[in-house]
Amino acid sequence: MTAPTAFAANHAPLPLPFAAGSLNGLSERLIVSHHENNYGGAVRNLNGVEKELARLNKDTPPFMVAGLRERELTFRNSKTLHEHYFGNLGGDGKRSGGIESVLSQTYGSSASWEEHFRLTGLGLGGGSGWVILGYELDTGALRTCSSGNHTQVLAASVPLLVMDMYEHAYQMDFGAAAARYIDAFFANLKWDEVNRRLQSAQRASKAWKSAT
Amino acid sequence: MTAPTAFAANHAPLPLPFAAGSLNGLSERLIVSHHENNYGGAVRNLNGVEKELARLNKDTPPFMVAGLRERELTFRNSKTLHEHYFGNLGGDGKRSGGIESVLSQTYGSSASWEEHFRLTGLGLGGGSGWVILGYELDTGALRTCSSGNHTQVLAASVPLLVMDMYEHAYQMDFGAAAARYIDAFFANLKWDEVNRRLQSAQRASKAWKSAT
Amino acid sequence: MTAPTAFAANHAPLPLPFAAGSLNGLSERLIVSHHENNYGGAVRNLNGVEKELARLNKDTPPFMVAGLRERELTFRNSKTLHEHYFGNLGGDGKRSGGIESVLSQTYGSSASWEEHFRLTGLGLGGGSGWVILGYELDTGALRTCSSGNHTQVLAASVPLLVMDMYEHAYQMDFGAAAARYIDAFFANLKWDEVNRRLQSAQRASKAWKSAT
Amino acid sequence: MTAPTAFAANHAPLPLPFAAGSLNGLSERLIVSHHENNYGGAVRNLNGVEKELARLNKDTPPFMVAGLRERELTFRNSKTLHEHYFGNLGGDGKRSGGIESVLSQTYGSSASWEEHFRLTGLGLGGGSGWVILGYELDTGALRTCSSGNHTQVLAASVPLLVMDMYEHAYQMDFGAAAARYIDAFFANLKWDEVNRRLQSAQRASKAWKSAT
Repeated sequence: MTAPTAFAANHAPLPLPFAAGSLNGLSERLIVSHHENNYGGAVRNLNGVEKELARLNKDTPPFMVAGLRERELTFRNSKTLHEHYFGNLGGDGKRSGGIESVLSQTYGSSASWEEHFRLTGLGLGGGSGWVILGYELDTGALRTCSSGNHTQVLAASVPLLVMDMYEHAYQMDFGAAAARYIDAFFANLKWDEVNRRLQSAQRASKAWKSAT
Repeated sequence: MTAPTAFAANHAPLPLPFAAGSLNGLSERLIVSHHENNYGGAVRNLNGVEKELARLNKDTPPFMVAGLRERELTFRNSKTLHEHYFGNLGGDGKRSGGIESVLSQTYGSSASWEEHFRLTGLGLGGGSGWVILGYELDTGALRTCSSGNHTQVLAASVPLLVMDMYEHAYQMDFGAAAARYIDAFFANLKWDEVNRRLQSAQRASKAWKSAT
Repeated sequence: MTAPTAFAANHAPLPLPFAAGSLNGLSERLIVSHHENNYGGAVRNLNGVEKELARLNKDTPPFMVAGLRERELTFRNSKTLHEHYFGNLGGDGKRSGGIESVLSQTYGSSASWEEHFRLTGLGLGGGSGWVILGYELDTGALRTCSSGNHTQVLAASVPLLVMDMYEHAYQMDFGAAAARYIDAFFANLKWDEVNRRLQSAQRASKAWKSAT
Repeated sequence: MTAPTAFAANHAPLPLPFAAGSLNGLSERLIVSHHENNYGGAVRNLNGVEKELARLNKDTPPFMVAGLRERELTFRNSKTLHEHYFGNLGGDGKRSGGIESVLSQTYGSSASWEEHFRLTGLGLGGGSGWVILGYELDTGALRTCSSGNHTQVLAASVPLLVMDMYEHAYQMDFGAAAARYIDAFFANLKWDEVNRRLQSAQRASKAWKSAT
């Protein structure tokens, strides 16, 4: 297995996995701007930061290292989370499959999980952040987590379902009405993809926990 | 597969995986305090937060949800990162095995990686945070990331090597001399464990990326 | 002098100091939404948080206190910064008066300051935060500072000029084109108010530094 | 009035305002290390950051500006807050004077304020941050605020009383026993200085709010 070079600065954005104008209640203009400017901008900035990181040496003041590392984490996570966000849109919002039973085991019912997840999103309304249904690889637990910026995520986890709560994800279409955006987000969720991620996560968890 | 209940509040601390007084240059008093007070405290607080989260309902003000979610992420990540931190200590600091070649592929040489990693740690000296050599499951890339608090980690990654840079990890033994702590940390690294994690991470990455 | 009670929860929003539709290149719809939803929301949330803070007692888990304090700081600062933001809009963007010479003393020229200030704003584009020209009361220095959320400001300072870089300040009108928003912001700056604040800040600094 | 140049990089640390070994229950070793390494380090780093900021120009990538601005705010606030922290130590901990009645008006009783303030400090135990009794210049209100790092403070306020909760403020003497540090902090508080700041703040507030 070959490991990608640390500071190659050659990240390229993935195309949208659905037609930009095909979502129900989220406009083409919003989706195109989000994908090109915010996701695309993160990818471009990550390349820029990697070029600067490649120049670090023993004489670099530690505060420069700390500042660049924070920027690197910001853009790298923004890239990853946006990819999983767009990846779980483009569906019909109908929940079924394995995720249904795992949500029920974890939260009592999948409706109860959804209520928690929506409330968590509302808590970020008017600001910035992500709400993520993550799968903890050490424990096999599903956990909803929330972050105020790109850097904050659940340690040692993979994202099963990702909702962008930055204002660029909804202001153009909904103004400040974050609750209406959350409705539209749920209406376009691609649960097949969430189920696919769940199965991959369960296998990844087994692999991660196994002794060699 | 049964998923752990979301708000069971039954987390228990893991014992230290080595004798508290057995490290070279990190005192028993420091290690015991770190394990009991900081790691143990995070576990106790996580249970406390889960009890509060279990009480959320549609009438809870969103700002309460946001505040609790931030605390939950703080303690959950602190628990996870501390477990991997203690888990990669107790060795003789001699690097060998698969990690050596992957670090070379990624950073030119493993010595160059180590310089980067130490610099990143120095950038957090006198404050708080973690430095983590993470394995990105989407890309198979090794990446050094740095955080100023428990909430900030690399998305969709597992930690191969974790260094605590909170002052509770070194002040008792080294005062403000963070560089001397970093030396001691490296002298006690258990590279066998890092290699074991690397192999598990490579298999987990394959599983995560596979279609079902 | 009577000090306001700590948890009275009776904050009320100030009206806009100009007609919502009177700005040049910033739409009435944007300004009304910003004022009612984001500023107004912060004031309502601050009242909500104060009610919760009033219930704290010795048995409250410290993590609840920390979570609420973070929310309190967020909404209190959002209130204060929004008031000074709207307060420095509604002008014709023509810079003159005392601020001109103080900016020149500090940055070489006021044009050089403006370039720095705009660059700092661009650094927050696509995210959230504030750019503030602050007056340090201990030193009498003007300093441009930047924050990624409401909680981060220059210690012991007053804001002379405040620019909101949250996406709710521009997405509706400009989409992701943050640079065009910054142009519009500067075109509507009310430099009379900035000059008034400068003079008040200079007197306040003298008072703060004096022995009794 | 001459304004200090923005990027002069000529900040110098203030000496301790009391003999390092004269505090009751806070060791000379702790105080000297705190003053030389943490406060002194912040001053040195602030100078370093100002030198980098002086080099910014229109071609600097905005992410570099954002990273440096965050570091600047960190070190500038650390400098300011440490100066007021050391400035309010060296006393006998006996509260009297004007602050007593203002705390009573605000919190019902000064004992109730103290309980709140201590609880807020405990909420930061094991991590990093500051607890500050601030005076809001816009409103004349006293407010206790808490921050997890150097950047977070109450907007448009001056600090009447500052407690450092970074672990470097207590680990050497108390290990993880943050509550015992808070006791020692209160035992050494110099309330004369707090009263002096209160009077200056009241005059500064009047000046700040006055029309020109």
